[in-house]
Amino acid sequence: MTKTHQVTFESADTPVQVPTGTTVIEAANLANVDIHQPCGGQGRCGRCVVQIKEGKVRQRSTLRLTSADIQDGYTLACQSVIEEDITIFVPPQEKVERRLVTDLTARKVSVPEGYQSELHQTIKRIPLKIDPPSMEDQTDDWSRLQREIKLVADIQGIQISLPLLQRIGSILRDGDWEVTAILDVPKEENTLPRLIDLFPIHFPKDKPLWGCAIDIGTTTVSVWLTNLITGQVHAQAAEYNQQISHGEDVISRIIFDSKENNEGVLQRLVTDTINQLINTACLRTKAKPEEIYKAVVVGNSIMLHLLMNIPAANIRLSPFINTFTHIPTLKAAELKLDLHPEASVEIIPSVASYVGADITAGALSSGIAETEKITFFMDVGTNGEMVLGSRDWMVTCACSAGPAFEGAGVVNGMRATKGAIEEVWINTKTYEPNIRVIGGGKPRGLCGSGLISLLAELFLAGVVDKSGNIDTTLDTPRVRTGIHEDEYVVAFADETEHGKDIVITHVDIDNLLRAKAAIFAGFVVLAEGVGVPLEAVEQVLIGGSFGQYINVEKAIQIGLLPDLPWENFHFLGNTAVMGAYNALLSWEAKQHITEIAKKMTYFELSADNAFYDAFMSALFLPHTDLTLFPSVAQQKAQV
Amino acid sequence: MTKTHQVTFESADTPVQVPTGTTVIEAANLANVDIHQPCGGQGRCGRCVVQIKEGKVRQRSTLRLTSADIQDGYTLACQSVIEEDITIFVPPQEKVERRLVTDLTARKVSVPEGYQSELHQTIKRIPLKIDPPSMEDQTDDWSRLQREIKLVADIQGIQISLPLLQRIGSILRDGDWEVTAILDVPKEENTLPRLIDLFPIHFPKDKPLWGCAIDIGTTTVSVWLTNLITGQVHAQAAEYNQQISHGEDVISRIIFDSKENNEGVLQRLVTDTINQLINTACLRTKAKPEEIYKAVVVGNSIMLHLLMNIPAANIRLSPFINTFTHIPTLKAAELKLDLHPEASVEIIPSVASYVGADITAGALSSGIAETEKITFFMDVGTNGEMVLGSRDWMVTCACSAGPAFEGAGVVNGMRATKGAIEEVWINTKTYEPNIRVIGGGKPRGLCGSGLISLLAELFLAGVVDKSGNIDTTLDTPRVRTGIHEDEYVVAFADETEHGKDIVITHVDIDNLLRAKAAIFAGFVVLAEGVGVPLEAVEQVLIGGSFGQYINVEKAIQIGLLPDLPWENFHFLGNTAVMGAYNALLSWEAKQHITEIAKKMTYFELSADNAFYDAFMSALFLPHTDLTLFPSVAQQKAQV
Repeated sequence: MTKTHQVTFESADTPVQVPTGTTVIEAANLANVDIHQPCGGQGRCGRCVVQIKEGKVRQRSTLRLTSADIQDGYTLACQSVIEEDITIFVPPQEKVERRLVTDLTARKVSVPEGYQSELHQTIKRIPLKIDPPSMEDQTDDWSRLQREIKLVADIQGIQISLPLLQRIGSILRDGDWEVTAILDVPKEENTLPRLIDLFPIHFPKDKPLWGCAIDIGTTTVSVWLTNLITGQVHAQAAEYNQQISHGEDVISRIIFDSKENNEGVLQRLVTDTINQLINTACLRTKAKPEEIYKAVVVGNSIMLHLLMNIPAANIRLSPFINTFTHIPTLKAAELKLDLHPEASVEIIPSVASYVGADITAGALSSGIAETEKITFFMDVGTNGEMVLGSRDWMVTCACSAGPAFEGAGVVNGMRATKGAIEEVWINTKTYEPNIRVIGGGKPRGLCGSGLISLLAELFLAGVVDKSGNIDTTLDTPRVRTGIHEDEYVVAFADETEHGKDIVITHVDIDNLLRAKAAIFAGFVVLAEGVGVPLEAVEQVLIGGSFGQYINVEKAIQIGLLPDLPWENFHFLGNTAVMGAYNALLSWEAKQHITEIAKKMTYFELSADNAFYDAFMSALFLPHTDLTLFPSVAQQKAQV
Repeated sequence: MTKTHQVTFESADTPVQVPTGTTVIEAANLANVDIHQPCGGQGRCGRCVVQIKEGKVRQRSTLRLTSADIQDGYTLACQSVIEEDITIFVPPQEKVERRLVTDLTARKVSVPEGYQSELHQTIKRIPLKIDPPSMEDQTDDWSRLQREIKLVADIQGIQISLPLLQRIGSILRDGDWEVTAILDVPKEENTLPRLIDLFPIHFPKDKPLWGCAIDIGTTTVSVWLTNLITGQVHAQAAEYNQQISHGEDVISRIIFDSKENNEGVLQRLVTDTINQLINTACLRTKAKPEEIYKAVVVGNSIMLHLLMNIPAANIRLSPFINTFTHIPTLKAAELKLDLHPEASVEIIPSVASYVGADITAGALSSGIAETEKITFFMDVGTNGEMVLGSRDWMVTCACSAGPAFEGAGVVNGMRATKGAIEEVWINTKTYEPNIRVIGGGKPRGLCGSGLISLLAELFLAGVVDKSGNIDTTLDTPRVRTGIHEDEYVVAFADETEHGKDIVITHVDIDNLLRAKAAIFAGFVVLAEGVGVPLEAVEQVLIGGSFGQYINVEKAIQIGLLPDLPWENFHFLGNTAVMGAYNALLSWEAKQHITEIAKKMTYFELSADNAFYDAFMSALFLPHTDLTLFPSVAQQKAQV
């Protein structure tokens, strides 16, 4: 007679009785305790980790568990065989994920420590009570206003626009000489304070003073609506860059933009995108677009050129020259941005043609410019831009990775929103996938992290070989030759929201390979360029909205990230917009970014044979040189 | 038998023989020697002055001759009786006029001594030969351009507009990196250098670099087109301010401007006027409007407010407050001026509501701010604005004189152009007028100097009494009661160009009286205000386009100017535009004007009882208090 054992789950009401040889996961099902097992009980994903509080289990596999984990009683529920009475603690799913994927979720935005709008903010809202004119003091309105501002706030040399000058006489009198001035008082060299607006009232002190940080990604545009007084972000909004309709990568955009009759089209599309986001963000708060007095904009050089309708053609052709890297503050009206027309629009400086403001801003917000550790910082957007260095030195390059990891250029690609498959596990015997969909429910497509995860699984399960070819000889309905090419079906029509198959095709895989190879080649070239071996890198900081959901293990398995210990990787979310946000709040932060831009040494890859070689070698799963990826070689052997 | 005498005119071929008792003027007629006698031989105008080189004549009257004149043999041809052989020199007419009316003609514009565009001019045209970008030097276009300008001209912190930034990439390449930069490099506080344009060529060194000085008078607008390299004025153009259609004086303009639906109308009219003048001036040279890179604008406060479409309503009402007196440089496009769209438009600072940039600029160009002499400086435009002082102190006021002396508000008034009656002499017995018409030919109307001269003559001849009433009892067809009121006919229909009578009416005279009373009251109030007796004034400097043709004697006779020796009066022409021209050429001159504006003490007359009293006393010909006008009393007695 088979022995039975009592299994107590701390979170469940009643213990269950199970025969010897039952797995913990089977016991959990019996006890109605929910334990995720994305890999379907193959013992590969490590997500079903539980902690044995009393008793012991027999562990068939301890893959993914450190010796400390084992010491602490952690075990994989699908690989643990029950042979005595036990008490089990099931950690919350989020905790498990965080153990496995460092900083998986976007960093919550916290106001920079010590932020004081009086000290750091250039936008000032100053209530004034002005002595009215009289026959004894006939000082003109504008001088009188300036005199009072100097007296109250010690600001002088104030500039004023003609449209505002046309209105100040009536504003001063409408307010009976009690007015509120909105000023921008920049601290940079060669800039002057400027009156943005004047109101015939005094505002409550706690009324927010709005500004926004804008990140123009080639694929995604983000806007953070921020109260400049408290520093708090009140609303975040992001959406596809509408320019996508005219090309998914920067090169296609430049080509489109350079064609006759297309002048201004891309500018209009990106300002439309930004304006919609501003309006969306405003709807989520009580702000009005015309109450936003400052915007800080980041983006790659091409995005910034197109925003300003500056031809970017010379960036595309050797020797790859920007029209600008640093420019003075613009006004919202000049860019047709839906802010206060006199709002200051500060464009964060770039380093070079393909290393834009997104990277300089990210270098600030990521902390690479402050650390002593040898650090890789990368912004995995459409352009793979990366920096190697520390607070003492920085080298940077850009490898045109393309938008594949943003879900673009892939048949069933999509952004990481509800309905996107963000994680895939494939049974190595049946080739059946197990998927996780953002927001639950039926899937609509594959987002970047889903694609990486899918590609890694296809490789590990042997569906795809190291060159990315699909093995059509496998005995599974999932692998088939589609209309044009081989494909793997991730979800059949009856499992999807839209009733159509979700597949990954051979061409999709090729695109992904090229994208990951470009990025990895960037790592190699930067490291070799300064003589730092890849394994000497102490941390890898990953920015970019895509990085929010990336799975390090999977990214290493496909050879996108270097094979370093997981704990060396840190996902920071959208470092570009975060840097813009820092600069929005503090002139010191902006100054720091300017210094960073000056400090970075740019490696031009497009004419670099070393890059070409590194790229060609990286066009395989995970790489031609498997010694660069020892952990992957080992995993592949284990499957 | 009557004796005959030989009369030799130095300028004539043959002497003439005349009987004893012949006048020199009769002898001149006989000899076909042309001697002007505007007063018709009454011995009043002094224009027929000649010099007796040999022999002597009997002088019936020596009116207008100084004892030095008499010593030198000068005599009045109409009053000199020939009683022996004589030789006579007839001075050129211009010389005579200059003797009588100091500096009668407009001062010829001469380039300020020592002008060096490199030192004084803020507009720079800098040819550049730039190292093209390469893979070794990927510096962006804008930084590269700035780097070269710094190297060549030591100018940094240059601002650039977005429209220009959009173009520099292609300009640099079109010019194969040999380009010409046009910069404005102001020296004022709180200003930054600015790139105005960039051209893909090098220009010949002697190609003019255009700028213009603009004077916006209430009645007349003047533009001087100037080569900023040499400083030479290449073309002058002046025309009525088209705003006149909506009111002749500043008050009517303000009222019109304040009405609903009229917003922007006056701005459009004055910019239309300026733009036409710019185009006229350009047609006279080889300049194109878009090649003009700088304009300096003067005008009274109201004109400047209207130019910028800034409501001027508060200037009209107590306590008479300008919206601005000093403002930063604008761009031509902001004001819709027909210059290079990025051209700098500098508005010269004003002192107060009714003492505008025309006066501060005039104070510079007139020299009052440099002299040690106690000086009256006045700008006789539509607003009578005046300054009393010297280089150590200055007080200023404005007395709304109205446009009567500019030919506006008077039935047959006109500007001082061809066809305008500029001088009138009336026979004290027949009341017949003798007129001088600008350009010769038949008259079309009366300009300012003609009106002054006419009014003085009407008074001296007794056609008009000291209150300005026309004596209709006189036995002459020239005096009559017109459709509505009494009038004096200066020229009958058959003598005029347009075939209509040219008259001066009672209302015209009233208008002229009010205008001259306002100006004279200004003199009185300023002088009394600082305790300087009128007779202590050492010189009177008169600016304003109208002042170009004014006749001091006549102006004193009607009580417009104080009764000081003629040689103390100096007519300087349009001092406002001259000041603008100085500021256009030299940043030091502009700085000097700014200092002058700060230094001036403003007397607000509108609430000043002393002014009202002085005005009322001055509403007579020449004045209630005849002791203020001893020379006029004497002349009146002689007639």
